[in-house]
Amino acid sequence: MNTRLEHDLLGDMEIPADAWYGIQTQRAVDNFAITGVPISHFPELIRALALVKMAAARANLDLGNISEARADAIIEACQDVAGGYLHDQFVVDLIQGGAGTSTNMNANEVIANLALEKLGYAKGDYQHLHPNDDVNCSQSTNDAYPTAACLAIQFAAEPLEKTITSLVAALRAKGEEFADVVKMGRTQLQDAVPMTLGQEFEAFAVNLSEDIDRLHEVCRLLCEVNLGGTAIGTGINTHPDYAGLAIGYLAEFSGKPMVPAANLVEATSDMGAFVMFSGVLRRFAIKLSKMANDLRLLSSGPRTGFGEISLPAMQPGSSIMPGKVNPVIPEAVNQTAFQVIANDLAVTLAAEAGQLQLNAMEPLIIYNLLNSMRMLGAACTMLEDRCIKGIEANRERCAELLNISIGSITALVPHIGYANASRIAQTALHSGSTVRELVLAEGLLDEAELENLLSPQSMLAPQGRTRSKKA
Amino acid sequence: MNTRLEHDLLGDMEIPADAWYGIQTQRAVDNFAITGVPISHFPELIRALALVKMAAARANLDLGNISEARADAIIEACQDVAGGYLHDQFVVDLIQGGAGTSTNMNANEVIANLALEKLGYAKGDYQHLHPNDDVNCSQSTNDAYPTAACLAIQFAAEPLEKTITSLVAALRAKGEEFADVVKMGRTQLQDAVPMTLGQEFEAFAVNLSEDIDRLHEVCRLLCEVNLGGTAIGTGINTHPDYAGLAIGYLAEFSGKPMVPAANLVEATSDMGAFVMFSGVLRRFAIKLSKMANDLRLLSSGPRTGFGEISLPAMQPGSSIMPGKVNPVIPEAVNQTAFQVIANDLAVTLAAEAGQLQLNAMEPLIIYNLLNSMRMLGAACTMLEDRCIKGIEANRERCAELLNISIGSITALVPHIGYANASRIAQTALHSGSTVRELVLAEGLLDEAELENLLSPQSMLAPQGRTRSKKA
Amino acid sequence: MNTRLEHDLLGDMEIPADAWYGIQTQRAVDNFAITGVPISHFPELIRALALVKMAAARANLDLGNISEARADAIIEACQDVAGGYLHDQFVVDLIQGGAGTSTNMNANEVIANLALEKLGYAKGDYQHLHPNDDVNCSQSTNDAYPTAACLAIQFAAEPLEKTITSLVAALRAKGEEFADVVKMGRTQLQDAVPMTLGQEFEAFAVNLSEDIDRLHEVCRLLCEVNLGGTAIGTGINTHPDYAGLAIGYLAEFSGKPMVPAANLVEATSDMGAFVMFSGVLRRFAIKLSKMANDLRLLSSGPRTGFGEISLPAMQPGSSIMPGKVNPVIPEAVNQTAFQVIANDLAVTLAAEAGQLQLNAMEPLIIYNLLNSMRMLGAACTMLEDRCIKGIEANRERCAELLNISIGSITALVPHIGYANASRIAQTALHSGSTVRELVLAEGLLDEAELENLLSPQSMLAPQGRTRSKKA
Amino acid sequence: MNTRLEHDLLGDMEIPADAWYGIQTQRAVDNFAITGVPISHFPELIRALALVKMAAARANLDLGNISEARADAIIEACQDVAGGYLHDQFVVDLIQGGAGTSTNMNANEVIANLALEKLGYAKGDYQHLHPNDDVNCSQSTNDAYPTAACLAIQFAAEPLEKTITSLVAALRAKGEEFADVVKMGRTQLQDAVPMTLGQEFEAFAVNLSEDIDRLHEVCRLLCEVNLGGTAIGTGINTHPDYAGLAIGYLAEFSGKPMVPAANLVEATSDMGAFVMFSGVLRRFAIKLSKMANDLRLLSSGPRTGFGEISLPAMQPGSSIMPGKVNPVIPEAVNQTAFQVIANDLAVTLAAEAGQLQLNAMEPLIIYNLLNSMRMLGAACTMLEDRCIKGIEANRERCAELLNISIGSITALVPHIGYANASRIAQTALHSGSTVRELVLAEGLLDEAELENLLSPQSMLAPQGRTRSKKA
Repeated sequence: MNTRLEHDLLGDMEIPADAWYGIQTQRAVDNFAITGVPISHFPELIRALALVKMAAARANLDLGNISEARADAIIEACQDVAGGYLHDQFVVDLIQGGAGTSTNMNANEVIANLALEKLGYAKGDYQHLHPNDDVNCSQSTNDAYPTAACLAIQFAAEPLEKTITSLVAALRAKGEEFADVVKMGRTQLQDAVPMTLGQEFEAFAVNLSEDIDRLHEVCRLLCEVNLGGTAIGTGINTHPDYAGLAIGYLAEFSGKPMVPAANLVEATSDMGAFVMFSGVLRRFAIKLSKMANDLRLLSSGPRTGFGEISLPAMQPGSSIMPGKVNPVIPEAVNQTAFQVIANDLAVTLAAEAGQLQLNAMEPLIIYNLLNSMRMLGAACTMLEDRCIKGIEANRERCAELLNISIGSITALVPHIGYANASRIAQTALHSGSTVRELVLAEGLLDEAELENLLSPQSMLAPQGRTRSKKA
Repeated sequence: MNTRLEHDLLGDMEIPADAWYGIQTQRAVDNFAITGVPISHFPELIRALALVKMAAARANLDLGNISEARADAIIEACQDVAGGYLHDQFVVDLIQGGAGTSTNMNANEVIANLALEKLGYAKGDYQHLHPNDDVNCSQSTNDAYPTAACLAIQFAAEPLEKTITSLVAALRAKGEEFADVVKMGRTQLQDAVPMTLGQEFEAFAVNLSEDIDRLHEVCRLLCEVNLGGTAIGTGINTHPDYAGLAIGYLAEFSGKPMVPAANLVEATSDMGAFVMFSGVLRRFAIKLSKMANDLRLLSSGPRTGFGEISLPAMQPGSSIMPGKVNPVIPEAVNQTAFQVIANDLAVTLAAEAGQLQLNAMEPLIIYNLLNSMRMLGAACTMLEDRCIKGIEANRERCAELLNISIGSITALVPHIGYANASRIAQTALHSGSTVRELVLAEGLLDEAELENLLSPQSMLAPQGRTRSKKA
Repeated sequence: MNTRLEHDLLGDMEIPADAWYGIQTQRAVDNFAITGVPISHFPELIRALALVKMAAARANLDLGNISEARADAIIEACQDVAGGYLHDQFVVDLIQGGAGTSTNMNANEVIANLALEKLGYAKGDYQHLHPNDDVNCSQSTNDAYPTAACLAIQFAAEPLEKTITSLVAALRAKGEEFADVVKMGRTQLQDAVPMTLGQEFEAFAVNLSEDIDRLHEVCRLLCEVNLGGTAIGTGINTHPDYAGLAIGYLAEFSGKPMVPAANLVEATSDMGAFVMFSGVLRRFAIKLSKMANDLRLLSSGPRTGFGEISLPAMQPGSSIMPGKVNPVIPEAVNQTAFQVIANDLAVTLAAEAGQLQLNAMEPLIIYNLLNSMRMLGAACTMLEDRCIKGIEANRERCAELLNISIGSITALVPHIGYANASRIAQTALHSGSTVRELVLAEGLLDEAELENLLSPQSMLAPQGRTRSKKA
Repeated sequence: MNTRLEHDLLGDMEIPADAWYGIQTQRAVDNFAITGVPISHFPELIRALALVKMAAARANLDLGNISEARADAIIEACQDVAGGYLHDQFVVDLIQGGAGTSTNMNANEVIANLALEKLGYAKGDYQHLHPNDDVNCSQSTNDAYPTAACLAIQFAAEPLEKTITSLVAALRAKGEEFADVVKMGRTQLQDAVPMTLGQEFEAFAVNLSEDIDRLHEVCRLLCEVNLGGTAIGTGINTHPDYAGLAIGYLAEFSGKPMVPAANLVEATSDMGAFVMFSGVLRRFAIKLSKMANDLRLLSSGPRTGFGEISLPAMQPGSSIMPGKVNPVIPEAVNQTAFQVIANDLAVTLAAEAGQLQLNAMEPLIIYNLLNSMRMLGAACTMLEDRCIKGIEANRERCAELLNISIGSITALVPHIGYANASRIAQTALHSGSTVRELVLAEGLLDEAELENLLSPQSMLAPQGRTRSKKA
């Protein structure tokens, strides 16, 4: 293998001649091999790193910190990387010590070598443009890395939001399709009162749609960044105008309303916004899992369960039981949700482990946030395309269960009182008689009144004693 | 013991004659004895329940659902209970099956019996005013209970917010007191660059203060309630105007901007707002724990640790080691934070366990939220009064460590380059020479320039190459 | 209030004259008010502390470290406390800083004052017998406290084990009672193959019974203690024979096979045994929750669910829906399980937070272990008495569901092949025909063969192709 | 692309002509794309699946369930796959619905096609040897898959155990190397009493070594498997002798003492052994993290921290601070530990989600166990090679801190009493005088006695009042 020699604080090292990264990246690759998942697994992180470097270069140019030639080369290199070029050169494992230094240096080195090429120099010829002195100018890992993370998460939130929006639309469409399917609602797995299957799916849609608002809110928290704080937030080695300039450019390049945090020392070690973000992902996972559980309950059977809906069959369900079809898609959603909830704990543990002016566990936080978003997005798409869209209502079954249930008695309470209603419900349950029969037999209501009260229109829309008495 | 006989769906039962609660409360007491913590442990929950019942009674009166006499008696009883009367009659364990039915019935029964007394009837004489037919009129546990919970949590957030505000002020005061104590900042427990001890405490203050904003935001989510949805959100047995009226009164009585949820079916089983709230408590716990860890690190010693600050001695530290004083207050803060993080997991598990039209695990959610808030409030007060206020800076120690450290080299990077600086740092570390000596010996900077760059003013405030070159 | 004056490292303090505890306990009470749960909530911990102090006194007496008179007084006092005396004097909050020092000193002070009384001296007259010099002789909190914790947990495990054993017996009895109730088994909530309801309950019994073995195993880990290690495990201030002697006495007094840990330095900061113990409690909680979920599923209905069993009605289920009875007992079991799982996370967080020679978060660990055990015990008793014992099988329902299901096709696979069986299952599902009809119509098996294969005896006992062909 | 047509319950599908897997695998690949991690990521799982299929084939042959020709072909194919052949054909995502059916079918299909080739048939020519009827004969996913998982985890535990053993040896070697480095021990981050650095590392070694025993214990739990239980544990479609035969062969082929579970119905849905296993991994992660924290504390500095040890420099520590070297390896260990603790929560959530006769979330459990083991192994190796082996003691620093500390006063307590010792400690701390000076000045001990008591030999080995008085 052809190599070139590079040098750092710890000495010399041979680097593959065609590698766009340099010695510090190589050391990190040698040091860390925990997950096997490299930075390149998350293109949004690479794009964010490139934009941070580009914004820094522009600010450094404005302030005269680096020459125009170098700045231009860096900016051009950043644009290429942001656009998807050389992503395979981001090779460090996502679980890494050093609070992201290796990720930051991987970016610095790749961008430096690409910029060197643009200037006509060979890879590794750092006296003409240096990963630290030039690409990383006015920066520390401790501000550049979390700033890039804040941006990367926002980038990743965009497709996730689209995916959720699409899933919500599919659920809402089912809500409309099933608007006329009257069925028994259940609380605590016990027969409660009537509702429509449409209401059930509409509730799923509303439930998930709220998390799009929550995502927006927590993305706003991620717009406050500590770029310009350098090592510990005191801004050592930066011009007083640097933070404002660099973050202004970052906002421009990214299209996100990035602003400097009010207190850079605080912002440098604070993981609060990441914890909030993780909390929203967890909340969404909880909701997805609850919905997946409901879908599995409602489709339980086909003969000995609830059987109110049928999920589309996606694969044979058993290697031994012929004809068995299982709710495999919701089951995969459950498992995804569980992993996201677990990843959220990793974020908690890492956030709590910050010490003094920095949190060295940031890489784990960022890995889990990006990973959870990716998994949730995949799960939503899978759920929408391979389950929700193909769900069918078993209308006869819904009607049959409604008819044999006793839950309609609740609608009579305002008219016959709780005590009478309780007694009749008990009798119905044990005798097999219907509520209708028993109420008439006892003369508590006349037939017309009873019919009216037990009609779907009456039971599904709120209308109380007063109005029904008038009717 | 004197008793009275009460009756419900399951039959008769003797109740202590002087009990203000009734048969359903008694059954719940018999059924559940898990935590030993009764509802009365959280007066804010009782107050919230009373206000919900009062708002319902007013709305029921307006709609003609109950007579003026009964409504007046109920409202008067609710006012008494909201004001603190009969709290010892809320006796059901907070971990309970039934999705809160027992808590709701405990409130219904106590209020009914108190209202009966106001009407001149004996306890248990429910034909004159009934816990279900009158106090619970137009309600189900499934709307009344979560509505009360949303309110109770907001009530509990008020003192918590005050406590945090006070703690933040104490931290900020220390930030000002220590504004002139220059010391080394540390990242990854390694010497980084200079800062002031004041900046460190100011960062704590800013960090915690942000969670007051987060609390406000999540409290707003709790203002959307499902009152009027009754059993499953369809509003069965309510007048179409009831939800709006009742929630309007609830807003008036509570002083909180309560509004009806847009979709009552969704709102009835949705635990999302509770999960968000829990997430904020967790975030605050994480921050408290990180700060407690920092306080313990900074005060480590007295002779073999960092020793930059001294915590006030609150108790002898050891049963065997004389003179030992331990950071017992921060340690108790850590443990409180861990319990709150754990309680947040209980909330997650309970929220995920919802099924179809209800979440039967709501009592666990509410218990953990109220308990965590109470514990966090106690921990903040303890921390402020018994630790923060008495912290002293060890100024000589801070200065001594600053002087022997090598971290000031960073300030020279823009002037001598990263490579030179790295080499000098290495030499200094191994030789024992100071950065100052080595830079001068190599002639990289002249003495005046060096003095200027290494002055605290220079190192603590962001000022880059350009300006310092001009200076 | 009458008071007496006591003195410690930090100065003087007035103590209630009739308090058996002393100044260090008083300081701890003032410092910590987080949970409101005092040590006395867990009598097994007080008993364990008393036995540790008693064993230490005996060892100290043997080694001549304290006089016979003092030793005798201490031993007598310990016996009283172990027997239940003065438990209300153990007043410190269970969440406390100081790694248990306050709990240890609370024990030292109460025992010292009780011993002083036995010697004819007044409370607080410590020159005659001192909490530190005499009661705590040869000990540190750092060995005495975790040793007591190891013992206390074993004490608490005894009633828990009895409770589980009793619950297992109740489940097994139901297994026998339902041994002849044939029903459909379900996997992934889909109809699978036949089984008996008895097998289902027997499986619950076996499942829980295994955790008794696990409890035994982890109790053995808790028999290795660090008594004699004093401050950090080096045994400073102890006689070389002390550790062996003291632990020998502890084994004798407690009836548990306590032995010294092989490496006392390691044992002093190691929380591993507590983590294992917590893991077993978590495992048991997971199993309880799964079983509670199953009970709720199997009893879902009464008309629109599975309805294979009926749980005993423990309380009216709804404040609005008459006649509704909910599975409140399993729901409370679920919530208890969730809290135990959450408490296990608190143990994890605390265990991870150990530093160097000690884990200052031990009090939180011990609190959560004891609390979880207490809650699990209460939940098991509740579940057995108020649910399991009263469960009834709905035999007709089980038979009806079995008859309409298609799952019996699996029994034919060895005889007609997987492909034929799949096709017939599909046809049956969509046509409404039975498996029996279709197989006969296609002539795949003759009637006698078919009857034999579909008989319960055939489907419930393993018998393969070979044998059935011979039959 | 060349394809072949395959058929299943749901219809026809084109499969790549050269694929060794078949239609059900293809459906699963299309359905699940959540993690991007295929089964082939864990060769131990493939090996285990192959051995299960091989054992089943042998048992089926013995019982006459399949022909000798088919059995031989299957067995030969299994041997190839167990040996590493065709692992790239195990393509299904590890998070999958269907309770492992897709993984089981992937194995069935690959083995069937390989066996077909051995018999001279084309891929997909299943009438000659069928994935379900022959490879899966007498099995269900519900017994074959968890049985394979139990085996796979044991396979994965072998290299993990070796890695831990090696790490323990490295720690023990450091313990010996540092046996003569006397230093201050610390409790609660406060100076406690003297110890050696060797004791500190020896304690790490002992601490981790205990988990090898725990791993052995939980591996034994995994030897009880449900093979032969088929769909729900009733053993439907198996010969009565099948379970015993198959598991006997599995023990023989795997070299593990596999035995049938006592109750196959219970065993089929029980995740208890996996939960225990995960608990042990978590425990080990907690210990690793605590040790990593200690290493970072002890090496904090180089100038403003504890500085008692130096970790080997593995990479430049900062992109801005020259000369900074960070504890990157322990930091990566912490993050790995956090992820493992989080994965353990995923296992908990999945285990709790079992329903009735099966746990559909098994794939997530197995994924997390295998993943955590792989990560822990990598972290241990990294820690040993890149950190522990290169750690150096800073002997002068240890001695210097020991000398200035006050903790030696504890050694004098048995001789001067706790009260005197406390007072002197306080004076020393505030005056700057040494303990030695103050004790002599007060005449509490004579010089020779004092020298003896404060010698390392005296302070480091347990020796009590009696003996020292004699000495």
